[in-house]
Amino acid sequence: MAKLLDEVVSEFSRLPGIGHRTAMRLAMHLLRMEVQDVALMAQSIARFRTEIHYCRCCNNLSDGEVCEICADPSRDRTTVCVVEQVKDVLSIENTHQYNGLYHVLGGVISPMQGIGPSDLKVDLLLDRMAQGEVKEVILALSTTVEGETTSFYLTRRLQECSGVRLSSIARGIGFGDELEYADELTIAHAIHNRQRIE
Amino acid sequence: MAKLLDEVVSEFSRLPGIGHRTAMRLAMHLLRMEVQDVALMAQSIARFRTEIHYCRCCNNLSDGEVCEICADPSRDRTTVCVVEQVKDVLSIENTHQYNGLYHVLGGVISPMQGIGPSDLKVDLLLDRMAQGEVKEVILALSTTVEGETTSFYLTRRLQECSGVRLSSIARGIGFGDELEYADELTIAHAIHNRQRIE
Repeated sequence: MAKLLDEVVSEFSRLPGIGHRTAMRLAMHLLRMEVQDVALMAQSIARFRTEIHYCRCCNNLSDGEVCEICADPSRDRTTVCVVEQVKDVLSIENTHQYNGLYHVLGGVISPMQGIGPSDLKVDLLLDRMAQGEVKEVILALSTTVEGETTSFYLTRRLQECSGVRLSSIARGIGFGDELEYADELTIAHAIHNRQRIE
Repeated sequence: MAKLLDEVVSEFSRLPGIGHRTAMRLAMHLLRMEVQDVALMAQSIARFRTEIHYCRCCNNLSDGEVCEICADPSRDRTTVCVVEQVKDVLSIENTHQYNGLYHVLGGVISPMQGIGPSDLKVDLLLDRMAQGEVKEVILALSTTVEGETTSFYLTRRLQECSGVRLSSIARGIGFGDELEYADELTIAHAIHNRQRIE
């Protein structure tokens, strides 16, 4: 096998979910692309890794020191939604239903993977609270064991901050889900937190 | 969304089989990789596209003018195996059962996709035949309609070359396949071309 081909195939194989066969297909696709376009792709991969910043307010990915959302004067600066990762910010932004700020923890507490509170951006969050501008913190973490543990931990830490209302995104049966396939805990929670139909 | 992130996600999304969600996962993975490793990956993608050659004998991918296989003096230069694409060369090489040379057509005749014989490296193959060294040509194309059409076309063209024995790789039931799920044409062919057990 040509060395250049071997190299690009093994580089693609380093990416998650890409095996040798897929890597080979991607390499073959590069040959069908314009030279200029492949150069742009390579450049954008390299630049992303070296030039991307983490927003110093919320830890979201950012082109500069402060991310677009934190820099946007039209956003409600009194509300902060705490999420696990950058992808979650995008998921919430795509709904166009939230106008507050975010805080990206960068993971969840997971003793199994050796991730403790100090590995997450908890202190940065508490620093933001200390500035006094934030009135509500919405916890929007996963409902996994790790996510719930992290929510519990954050609740305890945030309760120390006076004047901050704490909330959690609603748990229940998702739209399009069937009751038949929902687990008991979710159903129990959904019944317990039933909402009155006005 | 940060512009650098947006860019790298849309670049990844250009690759076949990679949607927006996967592209995002790949981008996030880049952040967990060492800067140096990402730079190497980007470099190897760009170099592959600009520096790879097609072997001037067999049209296989190659680091130089002539591929490793064609340049290898220990290979049997009297046998040429005709395949559709570079991947097929690797598949056959992985068996370690073939010691001849290859010829990569670069596709198959497909009127539906507007691919005719002139889009394939057929003339290059006939030029090789004209040099008189080749004694056997093995057709190893897919058993799709397009593959069979191409085999038929090549058979006719190669029959004009005197002194060249033509053969096709064996068709039949693959190892691990069940008769129950094989199509009638394959079974009929397998019975017709049954092999005597010595």
